[in-house]
Order: sequence, then C-alpha cells, then structure tokens
Amino acid sequence: MDNQNLTNAEKALLLHEQWKGKLETVAKSKVSSREDLALAYTPGVAEPCKVIAQNKEAAYRYTTKANTIAVVSDGSAVLGLGNIGAYAAMPVMEGKCVLFKEFGDVNAVPICLDTQDTEEIIATVKNIAPAYGGINLEDISAPRCFEIEERLKEMLDIPVFHDDQHGTAIVVLAGIINGLRLTGKDKQTCKVVVNGAGSAGIAITKLLLTYGFPDVTMCDREGIIGKDYPNLNWMQQKMTEVTNRSNARGTLADALKGADIFVGVSAPNIVTPEMVASMNKDAILFAMANPVPEIMPDAAKAAGARVVGTGRSDFPNQVNNVIAFPGIFKGALECRAAQITEEMKLAAANALAYLVSDEQLADDFIMPEAFDPRVAEVVSEAVKSHHHA
Amino acid sequence: MDNQNLTNAEKALLLHEQWKGKLETVAKSKVSSREDLALAYTPGVAEPCKVIAQNKEAAYRYTTKANTIAVVSDGSAVLGLGNIGAYAAMPVMEGKCVLFKEFGDVNAVPICLDTQDTEEIIATVKNIAPAYGGINLEDISAPRCFEIEERLKEMLDIPVFHDDQHGTAIVVLAGIINGLRLTGKDKQTCKVVVNGAGSAGIAITKLLLTYGFPDVTMCDREGIIGKDYPNLNWMQQKMTEVTNRSNARGTLADALKGADIFVGVSAPNIVTPEMVASMNKDAILFAMANPVPEIMPDAAKAAGARVVGTGRSDFPNQVNNVIAFPGIFKGALECRAAQITEEMKLAAANALAYLVSDEQLADDFIMPEAFDPRVAEVVSEAVKSHHHA
Repeated sequence: MDNQNLTNAEKALLLHEQWKGKLETVAKSKVSSREDLALAYTPGVAEPCKVIAQNKEAAYRYTTKANTIAVVSDGSAVLGLGNIGAYAAMPVMEGKCVLFKEFGDVNAVPICLDTQDTEEIIATVKNIAPAYGGINLEDISAPRCFEIEERLKEMLDIPVFHDDQHGTAIVVLAGIINGLRLTGKDKQTCKVVVNGAGSAGIAITKLLLTYGFPDVTMCDREGIIGKDYPNLNWMQQKMTEVTNRSNARGTLADALKGADIFVGVSAPNIVTPEMVASMNKDAILFAMANPVPEIMPDAAKAAGARVVGTGRSDFPNQVNNVIAFPGIFKGALECRAAQITEEMKLAAANALAYLVSDEQLADDFIMPEAFDPRVAEVVSEAVKSHHHA
Repeated sequence: MDNQNLTNAEKALLLHEQWKGKLETVAKSKVSSREDLALAYTPGVAEPCKVIAQNKEAAYRYTTKANTIAVVSDGSAVLGLGNIGAYAAMPVMEGKCVLFKEFGDVNAVPICLDTQDTEEIIATVKNIAPAYGGINLEDISAPRCFEIEERLKEMLDIPVFHDDQHGTAIVVLAGIINGLRLTGKDKQTCKVVVNGAGSAGIAITKLLLTYGFPDVTMCDREGIIGKDYPNLNWMQQKMTEVTNRSNARGTLADALKGADIFVGVSAPNIVTPEMVASMNKDAILFAMANPVPEIMPDAAKAAGARVVGTGRSDFPNQVNNVIAFPGIFKGALECRAAQITEEMKLAAANALAYLVSDEQLADDFIMPEAFDPRVAEVVSEAVKSHHHA
C-alpha cells in the first residue's frame, strides 16, 4: 500500500493495525537448554524467592520491580476524547509506555481498569503494586484523580504520580521560569491567571504557588473562581484558600487585566486579542487547549504578548510532558524514592528550564527539545539530588 | 567472578541479580522524530481509540490485548515454597512469563497480588482484564483457586486458566495416553489412583474422568477419599460424587492393590516397592512430588513398574507443564477463544502424546521433549481446531 496518499490519521490507524500493540515483553533470560530452564525457572528460581521472602526489599535486587512501572488509567478522561473507557484507552496507555521506555529507559506496562469507581480503583492499584517500582496514573477525570492519587500515596511505598497533573505542571513551570529569565519579570510581583480548574489547572496552580508566585487567580467557565463560586468540587474549594487572595469577581477578561502570565488548559479561542492587550507588558501566555489553543500564537503576539507556548508541535514553545515524565520515573527508580516530592518537581522544572542556555533562550525558544538526549538525564538527576533516603 | 565454582543455587541467585528482572518491555513503535511521536502518540493515537470506543472488539486489532496475557498469583502456594507472598513470588511469575514468550511467542506480564482474599483477587483480576487476551492463574492455594478460576471464567470474555491445575492435568494425561499405547491397556478397565487432593490432583482426576477412565480413586494423607472422609473442602466433597465408586475405604496401599496407574502429586517416599508390587502388571506411575518423588524410578521399576514419570528433568519421562501452557495460550489467542474448554485440553493432551511416534515410544520415552519446536505448535493447533466461534 502506498502510505504517501494517506492522511496522518489514516497512517496512524494503519500503523496501529500493523503493530497490533505497541509493546512487546521480551525475556532477558534466554531459555535454550535444560540448564537455562533450571536457572531461570525451577529449581534455581527458588533462591531469589527465598531471599525476598526474608526481606521484601530484595525484590528490587532480583525482580523487574527495580525498573518497571504501571501506567494506570480508567479511561475516564483520555486526551481530548473524554470518557472512552478502558478498552479504547489502551492505545494511549501503550503509547505512554513506549515514551517511558524510549525516552527514559523505564519499562512500563499499561493497566486499563474496567471500573471508574474510586474505591475499586484504589483497591485494585494497591493489590497489583508489588510488581512495580512506581505507578503513573493517567487520564483519570477530576476530581476523582485527586483522591485516588492522594490515598494511593499514603498506602504505597512506591511513587505514585498523576502525569496529567504533575507532568504538565513541571513543564509549564519550566517554561514560565524561562519566561521570567527572558523578560526580567520577578515572580514576587507577577500576576498569574490559570484558566481551567481540572486536574492540570489545579496542579499547575499548586506548583506555581509552591515555586513562589504569591498571586495566582484561577478561572473556569463562569469566570474568576472565589470562595462563593458555584458548584466547586472539594479540591477547587480547597484552592480558593490559596488563590484569588483579593477575592476578586468577574470574567476571564477581568482577571487578565494587568496580568503578566496566562496559563490556559481550557477551551479553544476563548482568549481575545483585546484581553491580551489588557495584560502587562511582556506578557507570557501558555495557551494549551488542544488541538486549537485559547488564542493562536500569531494573534497573541500581534496583540502584544511576548512569549507564547501551546500544546502543539507545529508552533514554537511546545508544552510537552514527554520532557518530564520519563526522567521523573527514571530518577525515582534509580534512587528508590518512595514519593515524588514537591522539591523534586521544582528541581525538575529548573533543570529543564536551564537546559536552554542563555544563548539559546529567545521568545520562541523557551523549552528544551523533546529529542534532546540530555533531557531525561537532567530531570532524573534533579529527582535523585532531592531524594532523602 | 568464576561461575564454575558456584553451586547451581548460587549461580541462579547471581544470575537473577544480574538480570534485575527477567523481563523487559520493548517498544515496537520506535519514536525518533516528531512525526513518529505524532503517529504512535498524540494526535494519531486518537484514531484507534475512536474505533475501539465504537467497538470493543477492535482492541484485538490495535492493542497488545491481541497477544498479551497476565500471569497472576497471590503467592499463596509457590513451587515447593508455600505461602511466600506477592513479592517473593515475583521471580517465579517472571520465569513463567519468560517461558510463555520463549516457547509460545506469547507476551506475558507478571501480576503479583498484595491480597489473598478471594473476593479481592476476583475483583482485581476483573478490573485489570481489559489489557489482556487471557489470564493465567498461578500458584494460588486450594480450594480458593477453584472458586477464583470458576468465577472469573463466568465474568470474563477472555480465557482464564489455572496452570497448576490444567497444565499439569494435560501433561499427565498425555503421558498416560502414551502409557496405554505402550502397554496396550484399555482405559475402560484401568484402575487409576491419584494421590494428593490439592489443585493438581483434583484437576488431573477430573481430566482423566473426562477422558474416559471410569474408575479413579483419590487418596490424601489419611487414605482413600470417600463420602465420609473427614475435613473435605467443597471441591473434594464434589469429587467424591464421581470417584471411588465402590466407596472403598483404606490406605493408599489398599488403593494401589490391583491398580494400573498411579499419579502422585503428594509427598516424597510415600510409595513403597511393596505397594508397586501389588499393582497390576505393566503398572504406570507418575511420581511427581518435587524434588523427591513418591518413589524413585529405579525402585519402582525394580518392584515391577513398567513406565515411571517424575517432575524431574534428570529422570526420563519428565512431567513438565512447559510443554502445555505456552501452546495453550498461543492457540487460544490466535483463535480468540473465550475459554479453554475440556475438548481443547483433551485435544492438547492427545496432540502431545502423538508427537512421540510409534518408533520413538518406549518405557523411558513417553513425553515429547520440552525443546522440540513442534510442541507449542501442535498444542496451539489442537486448541484452535476445537474452537467454535
């Protein structure tokens, strides 16, 4: 078949059919003789079993737990596709596993759950945890994702990381750090607006607060989120305690007046040139709605923005989680971190930002390249250097 | 280090430390450019997701479900090691996955469960099932294994197979078929004694009954199992309805008088030469206690046995599950069987038996070789030929 005449969508479908699954399980211990069998399987295999039975920690010495994570989804919030369920989520989770391996040399296996019940998800992940050195939660809808992650973190002695939240937050923070480097803005005096109060928006807001932005305002469909905003879930409610300190009300347009930084994880075309024009000089925008951003980069620039990032690879400054998650788990597995801490996330964002040298840094170059081979390495080192055993 | 001076146990431990896990997850879809990313991951990955969301069956066309099974254990009855738990069971489950891959080209991943509660095990396996084309249960203690397998078979639309039961039963039946070929005994008139009423003993008994042996007697520690035998679990109770039809009582020695076939999945050295001598002419013995059989082959032969098999690779006629399970799942995945039926098991046993040609067949050669490349193929074909879509 001549693939040249296919659209990219058709090509992707055809490739998936040819792959029949993007992952393969390969034996490191080849078995081509009775002696091989006796060493890799019975009776030899009893030896590591006995050691681990005495000391659970030895699982890291003798089993795939040392370098394998589970990519777990219930298929409730997959890409831009929404709640498509466990079966349809598989190609995405396999793809994620591919990226873990190709970018971070971390073995990852997809676990797609045939339940969207919070308690069942927690119990299931707890029950399957022994085989894994970490759990990457993926595409689980808010606010369930917050409870699932928090409770699993308490229960398990391996890192649990919801990439849609924290991976995104780390990469956005890296971009913002470089936005500050470029513009000379000071985080203490920056006004930040985050539009979209789902898992990513909340995680970004939290990390920006932890990084030291004192003034972050969250908006959602009906405008600025404050204590009296209707229908907040428990996590959004909690966020009102640390955001929008002046208790402002109004629309997104109101929020953006005099703002320095806009982060959108919301909907296409909801930011107008007028809104951008109302922001402070040298405004920094991350318009990450996919595939159509909150405002197109050229329109934002024409309206006065200085730095514009999107989720798309065909514009400059792509916010792409792939520069974070492989290195995060690579580092966590290498140092046997029990958790991915806030310090590790901040360190990872900093490391990513400073991979872009002063010479390279430019309005249209604030993000390291996904294929820069140093990326996973520096992120992994950042994680390890903030591990306290 | 010079491995030559190490014992096999030491060598096995050292190798496990070098492997650090006997499995690796490898990406079939390499990602070395932005275009690759866009096809294997976002946005291209949305295409197979959308097709599967419309029709769950398409998961077999586009995902690893097509050729991946889970090897699931709760670590409650591992090899000869007993209840060593999920972490210590990992090397065995990884080893099993290695054998699935190396002998059957089936991708298999280990799932070691941090629970031994029947309900939790069932719920967990049900919840993780979407990613897999089959579930191989492994090393789960009786009688829980019976309920877990039966209920999962009812719940799931993929094959669920407890190898300790059915793999063992298939291979034993293959050996017995060849024992009949050799000795000219007729199954209708054979008296069979199975010693050990755990998962393997019960499954072997069931399959022998299905194959058409009318007279099977089970024994356990205290002798012949009948309706009034003390402390039977529900499955053993059920077995009294179809075994020991004369409702005999007595010891294993009593049972063996005039018996044609002995199958032991029990304890070392519990069959004496006198017991063997009391059996019928051309007696067939499978003494599979590991590592020390119920009676050593030379002693059994000296006492008059004609065919003796054990679980050990250093004696002739090894009963080794590896000649069954890889082909069983290879076939089931290839034909998308929803279950491994009794017909498939019988066909697999027959296929294995007749891999040994009339010319090869001998008292000390009743089993095909584990490394015979035809093994997985004929078992797989046997399964497929008995699949009714």
